[in-house]
Amino acid sequence: MEKLKKYVSVKDEDQFYHQGAVELLVFNFLLILTILTIWLFKNHRFRFLHETGGAMLYGLVMGLIIRYATKASDVESGTVYECEKLKSGPSTLLINITNQVYEYQYKREISNHNVNGHQGNAMLQKMTFDPSIFFNILLPPIIFHAGYSLKKRHFFRNLGSILTYAFLGTAISCIVIGLIMYGFVKAMVHIGQLEGWEFHFTDCLFFGSLMSATDPVTVLAIFHELHVDTDLYTLLFGESVLNDAVAIVLTYSISIYSPKENPNVFDAAAFFQSVGNFLGIFAGSFAMGSSYAVVTALISFMYLTKFTKLCEFPMLETGLFFLLSWSAFLSAETAGLTGIVAVLFCGVTQAHYTYNNLSPDSKMRTKQLFEFMNFLAENVIFCYMGLALFTFQNHIFNPLFVFGAFVAVFVARACNIYPLSFLLNLGRNQKIPRNFQHMMMFSGLRGAIAFALAIRDTESQPKQMMFTTALLIVFFTVWVFGGGTTPMLTWLQIRVGVDPDEDLKTEAASQGTSNLDKNTTKAESAWLFRIWYGFDHKYLKPILTHTGPPLTTTLPEWCNPIARLLTSPSAYGDQLKADDTDYIINNDELTENCESSAHIPVPAQDRTGSTQATGKEDIHEGDLGLGGYKLQLEHTGGQSQNSLA
Amino acid sequence: MEKLKKYVSVKDEDQFYHQGAVELLVFNFLLILTILTIWLFKNHRFRFLHETGGAMLYGLVMGLIIRYATKASDVESGTVYECEKLKSGPSTLLINITNQVYEYQYKREISNHNVNGHQGNAMLQKMTFDPSIFFNILLPPIIFHAGYSLKKRHFFRNLGSILTYAFLGTAISCIVIGLIMYGFVKAMVHIGQLEGWEFHFTDCLFFGSLMSATDPVTVLAIFHELHVDTDLYTLLFGESVLNDAVAIVLTYSISIYSPKENPNVFDAAAFFQSVGNFLGIFAGSFAMGSSYAVVTALISFMYLTKFTKLCEFPMLETGLFFLLSWSAFLSAETAGLTGIVAVLFCGVTQAHYTYNNLSPDSKMRTKQLFEFMNFLAENVIFCYMGLALFTFQNHIFNPLFVFGAFVAVFVARACNIYPLSFLLNLGRNQKIPRNFQHMMMFSGLRGAIAFALAIRDTESQPKQMMFTTALLIVFFTVWVFGGGTTPMLTWLQIRVGVDPDEDLKTEAASQGTSNLDKNTTKAESAWLFRIWYGFDHKYLKPILTHTGPPLTTTLPEWCNPIARLLTSPSAYGDQLKADDTDYIINNDELTENCESSAHIPVPAQDRTGSTQATGKEDIHEGDLGLGGYKLQLEHTGGQSQNSLA
Repeated sequence: MEKLKKYVSVKDEDQFYHQGAVELLVFNFLLILTILTIWLFKNHRFRFLHETGGAMLYGLVMGLIIRYATKASDVESGTVYECEKLKSGPSTLLINITNQVYEYQYKREISNHNVNGHQGNAMLQKMTFDPSIFFNILLPPIIFHAGYSLKKRHFFRNLGSILTYAFLGTAISCIVIGLIMYGFVKAMVHIGQLEGWEFHFTDCLFFGSLMSATDPVTVLAIFHELHVDTDLYTLLFGESVLNDAVAIVLTYSISIYSPKENPNVFDAAAFFQSVGNFLGIFAGSFAMGSSYAVVTALISFMYLTKFTKLCEFPMLETGLFFLLSWSAFLSAETAGLTGIVAVLFCGVTQAHYTYNNLSPDSKMRTKQLFEFMNFLAENVIFCYMGLALFTFQNHIFNPLFVFGAFVAVFVARACNIYPLSFLLNLGRNQKIPRNFQHMMMFSGLRGAIAFALAIRDTESQPKQMMFTTALLIVFFTVWVFGGGTTPMLTWLQIRVGVDPDEDLKTEAASQGTSNLDKNTTKAESAWLFRIWYGFDHKYLKPILTHTGPPLTTTLPEWCNPIARLLTSPSAYGDQLKADDTDYIINNDELTENCESSAHIPVPAQDRTGSTQATGKEDIHEGDLGLGGYKLQLEHTGGQSQNSLA
Repeated sequence: MEKLKKYVSVKDEDQFYHQGAVELLVFNFLLILTILTIWLFKNHRFRFLHETGGAMLYGLVMGLIIRYATKASDVESGTVYECEKLKSGPSTLLINITNQVYEYQYKREISNHNVNGHQGNAMLQKMTFDPSIFFNILLPPIIFHAGYSLKKRHFFRNLGSILTYAFLGTAISCIVIGLIMYGFVKAMVHIGQLEGWEFHFTDCLFFGSLMSATDPVTVLAIFHELHVDTDLYTLLFGESVLNDAVAIVLTYSISIYSPKENPNVFDAAAFFQSVGNFLGIFAGSFAMGSSYAVVTALISFMYLTKFTKLCEFPMLETGLFFLLSWSAFLSAETAGLTGIVAVLFCGVTQAHYTYNNLSPDSKMRTKQLFEFMNFLAENVIFCYMGLALFTFQNHIFNPLFVFGAFVAVFVARACNIYPLSFLLNLGRNQKIPRNFQHMMMFSGLRGAIAFALAIRDTESQPKQMMFTTALLIVFFTVWVFGGGTTPMLTWLQIRVGVDPDEDLKTEAASQGTSNLDKNTTKAESAWLFRIWYGFDHKYLKPILTHTGPPLTTTLPEWCNPIARLLTSPSAYGDQLKADDTDYIINNDELTENCESSAHIPVPAQDRTGSTQATGKEDIHEGDLGLGGYKLQLEHTGGQSQNSLA
């Protein structure tokens, strides 16, 4: 008999394997549907529903089916058992049930009011997977890809503005949302809706910080497809990427803000501790990410020149690149920092240094690999968001809170964009026009990060209400604003079909005549980075990559022996090829290839993939972006020096 | 106070996130070390330690460190709690501990004798991850890659022999190991080592079936690098790939063999039920995998010609390809079949049909993606095997059993290779020489599949002893036999540096003179596949791909309207390019690129990647492999007809 029982247990276990397979199959099925739909849409040039919106829609339908078409099977799971012998929850629990020991693994703590939600459907429980999967598996590739595909030239040109929007703008947004929500919460308490709840101002700020993370995916995909004005694109892209990082760290800092006494009274010490936390975590994550990238660059550089021709093994190169970048994320998490921020700056730094050391084959491999991972992760997240509306079992829907949140989000976005744009325009030579500001206002979609931050903690009732509300805002903004992007662009008369390198060409053409003007424009952000750039160009690039001037020319003479040791032999010949890193940015070939048959006039040059962008074009790029800054200074002499001062 | 407690719980949860990050970081670190070591080795042309051996070695060291350098932290986890209220283990357990409800998730059943093993180290427990991760995540890419990169021309030429080795050989191996082990177990019982254990003949057969799965990775990588004789390569590759599938289904069939009464008495009904199970599962999985591949081919074909130019969206193509292939695996698992077998045949079929419909960009993307996933998964598995030696907490080491297993494995391999080769040589025109047989005997490494099958069930004591023994055999064979491959090749005087298409050229050169000989050789396996090949070439290929003759010429005249509808417009022009699918097979560029600087003389043609292999070469390939069979028949007329009959 015991033998038979054993077989039964093996079969039970198999049942569990199949369960895992079923869930994965559901996601695969949703993704396949999404892909087939996107094809159809792309083919008919429908732009009112982006793939992310489609993925969310399918997820929603699937969630509805799972919710109402599957039966409640596991009746016992709603019961709570007493255990007096234990003092705290161990990570593994061994329980003797009718002479058979079962192992149970700690999952989470549950508030008493949530216990009833656990009654019932096992399938629903399986489909709502662990938020840590979001943070450890799905988000890193998306964020890394964003960093890796940053259009560096345009980014650095607008860096001051981007930083302002990202840091100051997110702080404004967080505080404004927090204040408005606090008003609404007070009103709700007044009419007796939140009896017995604890809902402090810090909770409102927490909501404010998580709702401040804007999502670049949908709008930017459309922008990229339509070739919207590059400056607008860069501003939005830079803002939303950095703003995610800021919002994540901000949310964490607020969640650990713990005033000693009354939580409603402002505690200066605790506040400054939170601010310190914010700065410390941000800086630490930045350092962690960058240093991993530098290590990768060094390894690839060393292996490439000193030990072996590593470019002969593109698989090893790609593998190392992938693993070290992921390690940046994991190390930051392990050290108590923010992995997402680390992996973002790791991506930026990898693109700047390591990319130059990769073999052509590896350049393409890494680019395609990260693109693909980004594509999959993005669609999984949006599918999951759709699913969550019906499969998550502890939704708390409060119309007043939802209304308040919608108001707060839009007011906060307005308070972020318009005043900051006004201030920035005071300093900018190339103003941010009104229609750009309106477009930025309109593009404040909320997406994966807001969702991930909200789902991370859904234990207390206020947090559950926030999660429900955040989910609704994500749905609304992705569908309505995402779908309205194209009409809005037309209505605001924003240029589409712009060649991203157009400005370079006009600059190049006018180089002889109006040096003063151009260099003034350049100088806008240049003062911030002149020192850094010089250091990077003269020392870091030659040490870490095969580009840039030989160290022998940039270091003082007495360093020559060391300089000769560290300089790559190929550096002497390649000085002009300095900045070809800028070319890894032609994002998804997906949209890239799409417009080769589109009716938007795009110059042929724009269609070239990253691998073809060598030689002459590189020099263009290098000359006129940051890379060429030095050359121009030499050209124009004292005149430009004056304009920079 | 309650607030404070809440914050503590949030921090606890974060602790859990970091735990996940730590484990992943350990694996990342091991993989990075492995990659750096491989580079060094490749550079110095050390062949005595393959990357898989290196990964295992690093895993071993890391396991040692984790085992002895980390402290036992979670003392409470060894205690068993009673719970009289429950009748069976629910999937989720809610437990009230000092007024706080905790959620616990069902993990597994534990035998009483294993309870003590759970005392102690939480880190060790975390590092021994769920076997279902092996089966659902790590194995599919490896097996799919094997199927996708099958050298079809050589494979089909040796198909009869490969099938014999895979099916008959595995059955022989399983039975021989089972019998020998049963002898040893009897002896162990006799000297009183297994008191109180249940160890039946079926358990011995179970061990036999799991130890019959040979691993192709290490030996084949070296073969590929050294360009060992193509027929030997194909025999070994085909055998080990198919043999994995057979062993998996066999293990499952044996594990569900449940005689009604005394488990030591042969029960004919139960036996035939197991055989039926084996055949049903194998056939079902085969059908599932192939049909998914056919669906993929149809979708890509339809989208490509009828609806839209899907080749403009390589990302979508790649995504669809990836998802549908993985779905084949998951669907098979969900349906109670064997996913690994499904994904293997899915890979073969995808390579045969879908690959032809992909855009050039997607062809390369999919190839590189699967190569990369294969590389990562392989190294993770071997690292994990190294780790498991020290982190797995229920090892049972029995010297007699281990000795018996070593004897059994080698005897079984000998009983498999030599008699079958003798039988096959009776039928083959091109005999399998003695030194090939010795090499095949020597190449019977055990690897990932044997390990995964053994770890899947480690509940009872016999199963734990089997797991420990299997692990030791894997270590021994990978290090000793894997490392000894190169000396063994020299000793057996097996040709290296062979151009895989050499035979084609000599055949091509001698086409005018000795048609009779050549066609006789071809006929060896041809009779098995003439009908299938004709059907495939005339009907399936034209329907599913853009290659092959137009349906209008192959279907009877009255079908013309349908034929015209189904035929791709490009099929009419491309008749000669029929079999370029064969060219996706130049496996890892890793080794491919390596020998471009090696001292082994390799014809330049061999170094071309799959993407370059077009035009003239394809025609060669098509003409002289299976694809050209028909053309040859036409050339030589009645003569060859006679030789085939």
